[in-house]
Amino acid sequence: MTRLFNDPAFFTEDMLTGFLDANADYVVGVPGGVVRAATTRPGKVAVVVGGGSGHYPAFCGVVGPGFADGAVVGNIFTSPSTTDAASVGRAANGGAGVLLTTGNYAGDVLNFELAVAQLEAEGIPARYLAVTDDIASAPRDEIDRRRGIAGDFTVFKVASAAAEEGYDLDQVLRVARLANDATRSLGVAFDGCTLPGAPEPLFTVPPGRMGLGLGIHGEPGISERPLPSAAELAELLVEGVLAEKPAGAGERVAVILNGLGRTKYEELFVVWADVSRLLRAAGCTVVRPEVGELVTSLDMAGCSLTVMWLDDELERCWLAPADTPTFRRGTPGAAGQGQRRDPAETAAPDGRAAEGEAVEADPEARRSGARIATALTAIAGRMAEAETELGRIDAVAGDGDHGRGMVKGSAAASAAAQDAVQRGAGPAGVLRAAGEQWAARAGGTSGVLWGALLTAVGGRLGDHGRPDDRTVVESLRAGYQALVRLGGASPGDKTMLDALLPFVEALEESVSNGRPWSAAWADAAQVASRAADATAELRPRVGRARPLAERSVGTPDAGAVSLAMCVGSVANVFTEQKEDPP
Amino acid sequence: MTRLFNDPAFFTEDMLTGFLDANADYVVGVPGGVVRAATTRPGKVAVVVGGGSGHYPAFCGVVGPGFADGAVVGNIFTSPSTTDAASVGRAANGGAGVLLTTGNYAGDVLNFELAVAQLEAEGIPARYLAVTDDIASAPRDEIDRRRGIAGDFTVFKVASAAAEEGYDLDQVLRVARLANDATRSLGVAFDGCTLPGAPEPLFTVPPGRMGLGLGIHGEPGISERPLPSAAELAELLVEGVLAEKPAGAGERVAVILNGLGRTKYEELFVVWADVSRLLRAAGCTVVRPEVGELVTSLDMAGCSLTVMWLDDELERCWLAPADTPTFRRGTPGAAGQGQRRDPAETAAPDGRAAEGEAVEADPEARRSGARIATALTAIAGRMAEAETELGRIDAVAGDGDHGRGMVKGSAAASAAAQDAVQRGAGPAGVLRAAGEQWAARAGGTSGVLWGALLTAVGGRLGDHGRPDDRTVVESLRAGYQALVRLGGASPGDKTMLDALLPFVEALEESVSNGRPWSAAWADAAQVASRAADATAELRPRVGRARPLAERSVGTPDAGAVSLAMCVGSVANVFTEQKEDPP
Repeated sequence: MTRLFNDPAFFTEDMLTGFLDANADYVVGVPGGVVRAATTRPGKVAVVVGGGSGHYPAFCGVVGPGFADGAVVGNIFTSPSTTDAASVGRAANGGAGVLLTTGNYAGDVLNFELAVAQLEAEGIPARYLAVTDDIASAPRDEIDRRRGIAGDFTVFKVASAAAEEGYDLDQVLRVARLANDATRSLGVAFDGCTLPGAPEPLFTVPPGRMGLGLGIHGEPGISERPLPSAAELAELLVEGVLAEKPAGAGERVAVILNGLGRTKYEELFVVWADVSRLLRAAGCTVVRPEVGELVTSLDMAGCSLTVMWLDDELERCWLAPADTPTFRRGTPGAAGQGQRRDPAETAAPDGRAAEGEAVEADPEARRSGARIATALTAIAGRMAEAETELGRIDAVAGDGDHGRGMVKGSAAASAAAQDAVQRGAGPAGVLRAAGEQWAARAGGTSGVLWGALLTAVGGRLGDHGRPDDRTVVESLRAGYQALVRLGGASPGDKTMLDALLPFVEALEESVSNGRPWSAAWADAAQVASRAADATAELRPRVGRARPLAERSVGTPDAGAVSLAMCVGSVANVFTEQKEDPP
Repeated sequence: MTRLFNDPAFFTEDMLTGFLDANADYVVGVPGGVVRAATTRPGKVAVVVGGGSGHYPAFCGVVGPGFADGAVVGNIFTSPSTTDAASVGRAANGGAGVLLTTGNYAGDVLNFELAVAQLEAEGIPARYLAVTDDIASAPRDEIDRRRGIAGDFTVFKVASAAAEEGYDLDQVLRVARLANDATRSLGVAFDGCTLPGAPEPLFTVPPGRMGLGLGIHGEPGISERPLPSAAELAELLVEGVLAEKPAGAGERVAVILNGLGRTKYEELFVVWADVSRLLRAAGCTVVRPEVGELVTSLDMAGCSLTVMWLDDELERCWLAPADTPTFRRGTPGAAGQGQRRDPAETAAPDGRAAEGEAVEADPEARRSGARIATALTAIAGRMAEAETELGRIDAVAGDGDHGRGMVKGSAAASAAAQDAVQRGAGPAGVLRAAGEQWAARAGGTSGVLWGALLTAVGGRLGDHGRPDDRTVVESLRAGYQALVRLGGASPGDKTMLDALLPFVEALEESVSNGRPWSAAWADAAQVASRAADATAELRPRVGRARPLAERSVGTPDAGAVSLAMCVGSVANVFTEQKEDPP
């Protein structure tokens, strides 16, 4: 379990402070993550890796000459926000564009693709690749749905070496795709990890048993079986990975035997002795294997085998020199480095946005804005209260980070909203500031979605006068539509939409019957709450593997539950102050 | 816990096979451990580090240019044997002598000092240094009794850099001593590790508690207290270590924040943020800190802080380049390397001694030799049966490795004895072969002592005719005296002597009363057994810290118990075959 922390809510920030201090020769912090201490040399493509933290040395531990130019650092097991990914990409850009790359997880894909769009809109060429090496996470005919595990390391290494060689952005992307297509991994778990401050492990494996294909955030695996001997495990992993050998692949292979945190070096070497023997027996030539902790999962017990089948280009990139806080190979040329960064250019990684600009709203709109800020503060309070409950629900079919994300996002939104009120903002200004900060600070899929929801609602409410009943329901409908557009889900897919839509419809119906929205809100919130509970009967359909979908039946969707809680807590605010709603 | 192994009895061998395979660019195996892939350049002092395994990357993970020339690899948490240490020293020697260095543990000190004597006897200049950085393991006025923990790393690094610079052997020893005198560590533990195949953890810490000063093999610490926050822990460690600042030390410090296996990188960085701040606040200038896993203890949860106060020479050595499987710094010059080793020169690390030479004994002596071999096989069987029980007893006041060591040693002794019988050996030849192999294969203090015991007994029995009663009791007295000489303990110090002496005395008395030794053996063995049980009331006086001594009261000494078991099992052999004793 994770025992050492101060405030669990700031674990990632504290971790990053220590990491940057200990590795000041290699890296500096920028908002959203870290970049190399030297600037990217002009004309070199920048490779920016990332994802949630808790996987050290992935991802910030491999920033340095010959490897990544920057790493976006999300909260533990949580995707960084779009803002974070774009920020690190911007800082790493040396003028030749940026390849952003992560493992294939919904939150990462969403946020990094949005960051690519944002960078491109700013005139910075950007591309994105999601690594899909985990053969246990989806069948061969749905290879694009596979998750990224330790294969992140081979793909990131190869792409980084290609960039260092001077490839242009599309060529770096081409080689990264080749590496991903040539990489297969299979992992096992013996016991789960515990998030900082969490009362229980994120997941467990019964003593004496092993989860085959269990994901690095505890995602369900293929099967559970008795703990094998080291030799039996080696056979299982080698056979499993070799059975997925890509068509036309040769016999030269880069290999990683990766420890997840608590399966230690000595055990890995015992297993490696058999893995090496079996690979040779199968006709493989192992090129510069890595045996150790490259992509961990806090103190999770388990390991994984990754094989990347090499052609000449991939082998050259795999063997190319690199020099990072945790991984070194050969002697990277100093000539290819940029200049030491100006300290003024970098910032402490606290993720806080620049001071918002002044806004203009009329007094009525400002009073509405203040009420909305109060509501957001109530939401933040409710989420702080519900964090553990939400994490527990989410752990059934997800990685248990939903409560933490909601707490971080809502707290940031509340603070930004109160700040916007001080600057004289109305509903639009308050909700835009809150939405931006929710998305920036919460990370994960739900952070982006909540950010979009608040921003869309605010955009319809505007900053002039007090919104009337029709405007309020229209704003909520606009928020719902923003989520549908952004998230790609439909009602019935077991998402927050399944609580939000009944809520919006109930409020629309009451208002169309002549009831003031503030009077109708509490009843609509009850509808949302019942709808959230009813998601227990649904089977998710968006971007989730079959075992995950089945495991989730009987448990409501955490996003739907938290949404219902949020609208419920706002009802209380409005009821208490019903003489003066926004 | 350690989950991945094949035969637990061969865990270290299997681990080493995998380690050598994965790191063939850096290291090759030699009997007893590993050396660099390139020979030591002529005229360069060789630095050979070592100790039990289970502490990776200590010790074999730091063999390479700029760091160690070789590592002696003992079984898990068990000192390598004298034979192993001498073997690696011999292989690493480049003609300018060898510094052997380990943490300060009784078994390591004993075996490595004997290895130094052996190397010197062969004409290879050799020195030994035991690292004593753990401030929790003995008070300041008994600094030489302190154990070595992560300070091993700073001392080994500095000594290796000095050797690389071209210092002669005594100058390397001088700098190593300076580094040791300037290094202080303090560690904490949150939970214990589990040896391969063991049913229970070696030790535990209650949930929510922390053992301050708990050793890397579970040796008792100073106190147990509630789990602190990361900041509180940082304060405790920094204050504790700075309070032990050596007289006259400056303000520049090399610092290690070391994870023991299950306290992960992210947590270490969180703690490091506060450690770094506190060190700066105390006026220290931190020079190239290391935050990570440098000296682990399987999957033990915990961490330690090490500070080495620097002068110009130590700082230069600390910062000097190094390139090893796990630790790299800068770019070590290739010019200073020797040549790639001839594969024929190296051997699989199975620790087996060369084929014994033919021996000559008369038929009567050969029949006695065969009986003794049978007795040794019975001992090996009894030890295999008692392994867990002995480990459990030893874990109370030691590191729980006694059972494993006895199993390995007695099995090797049995095999060597049977082999000697095939070659026609009598009592002396059988017991000498058995003693050598026991010492070589068991490791630890008890391995050396048992080796000496058997050899001394055999030396008195001789290889001519059947030993008479008086010769048998004299041989056992000679064995007892060899132990007293070698181990430095006296009766009453809670060691195996406390079972052996009553046994020898009982047998002497019976024989002096005219009873044949073979008839008297069983009764004397009963005396030994009762004496072993009675050691529960004793407090150890040899080389054990006060908390350890107190913890051991109420539990018998594992060495005394196993000795009584051994003589008991031999009684059965002799009783069954009493018509024809040796």
